Amino acid sequence: MKLLALDSSSIVATVALMEEDKLIGEIILNHRKNHSEKLVPIIHRLLEEVEMDIQEIDAFGVCIGPGSFTGIRIGVSTAKALAQVGNKPLIGISTLEGLAFNLPYCKGIICPILDAQRNQIYTGLYKWEGNQMYSIEKEQAIGVEEWIEKIQDRNEHIHFVGDGVEKFISFFQERLKDRVSVTPSTVKMPRASSIGALAMDKIQRGEITEYKEIVPNYIRKSQAEQNLKIKGEGNARRV
Amino acid sequence: MKLLALDSSSIVATVALMEEDKLIGEIILNHRKNHSEKLVPIIHRLLEEVEMDIQEIDAFGVCIGPGSFTGIRIGVSTAKALAQVGNKPLIGISTLEGLAFNLPYCKGIICPILDAQRNQIYTGLYKWEGNQMYSIEKEQAIGVEEWIEKIQDRNEHIHFVGDGVEKFISFFQERLKDRVSVTPSTVKMPRASSIGALAMDKIQRGEITEYKEIVPNYIRKSQAEQNLKIKGEGNARRV
Repeated sequence: MKLLALDSSSIVATVALMEEDKLIGEIILNHRKNHSEKLVPIIHRLLEEVEMDIQEIDAFGVCIGPGSFTGIRIGVSTAKALAQVGNKPLIGISTLEGLAFNLPYCKGIICPILDAQRNQIYTGLYKWEGNQMYSIEKEQAIGVEEWIEKIQDRNEHIHFVGDGVEKFISFFQERLKDRVSVTPSTVKMPRASSIGALAMDKIQRGEITEYKEIVPNYIRKSQAEQNLKIKGEGNARRV
Repeated sequence: MKLLALDSSSIVATVALMEEDKLIGEIILNHRKNHSEKLVPIIHRLLEEVEMDIQEIDAFGVCIGPGSFTGIRIGVSTAKALAQVGNKPLIGISTLEGLAFNLPYCKGIICPILDAQRNQIYTGLYKWEGNQMYSIEKEQAIGVEEWIEKIQDRNEHIHFVGDGVEKFISFFQERLKDRVSVTPSTVKMPRASSIGALAMDKIQRGEITEYKEIVPNYIRKSQAEQNLKIKGEGNARRV
């Protein structure tokens, strides 16, 4: 079974093609956030390089968020269109789970961090036990201070990954000292192959979804929606 | 500092571009072994995608083997040409070390295996301690039986990576039972980003080499060279 996975939920645009337990190809671009221009061309380029046609793909995997609202929308829309055209399954995978899966069999705890603005992060905790990765603290949007309170009693090394690392790492280092580990650049940012492997795993477990069922997981409403809500409530009170 | 890394020592052709601790882009193609046609075009494609010129690259990294003789020659020649043109440093990295670096902070032991033909493998053992990866059994060409003898007393999980896994894994599973772990497809095969990260690390430690110093590390002579040696010795005896 051939699966095409894509992720444009951060500044990185990435696509990967797998066949069962083989990674056939992957492209990762961490350059400029012009996903609306770049994503579809790199999908075509990857297929071209491996001499494959989009019709040969049996299923699709996509990163559904959290992350950049526009980035998630571009990724999910593109994947939905591809899955709908060929009437193929589409599997949605969390950005945070995808990032954690960049570190297979890792010692300690993995903590993906995405900058959610307004001093909040999208985060969660993951841990490998045997050959399985488990979520040990559910994904959430949370204030950095509050998150530190939650995780500081865990007496294990914490590996930070994701685009929020750069902004918040010194803060974590100050509070968690030498328990903080910054992962190498090779695994710090999204890789479509991790999304693909997790999607393949879901399919093998029978968790097969179709394009209509896949919705973005923003976790938090966008600022515009929040403003609208406040305005709406304000209006309601004024009536 | 910008570094371009490449690896064509196996069926995989892969290039990556990094800037300090940022992976700017990576292409991995595990399709057909036509590296002499594919490698240079994918370097150009990656540079084009990230709007960079080859003159902007400050250093190069290349996988020097062991692995496919022809593949290594193509990779090393290409990297040497690029480094020579701009008079830039060129750092050579072992295939096995590169593969092991696909699993940062991994629990247990990492054992890359490449098929060396004639029932031999190119292999070695690596282990993460803190934030450093160490070689704990040097790289070598060795018979599979003999290798099993060497590693079977280690009471730890062993993670197998590399293109030899498919051929030899059932043999290892039979002998090492549940200590054998097969890593996900996402990290099993070469990634230029791992070569790049290890090359960057060498540069930061001051281990800077120039193109003339870089030679392939085949570990074992090719069959053709071995035949020639036997023929030569035969002739010598006949005189």
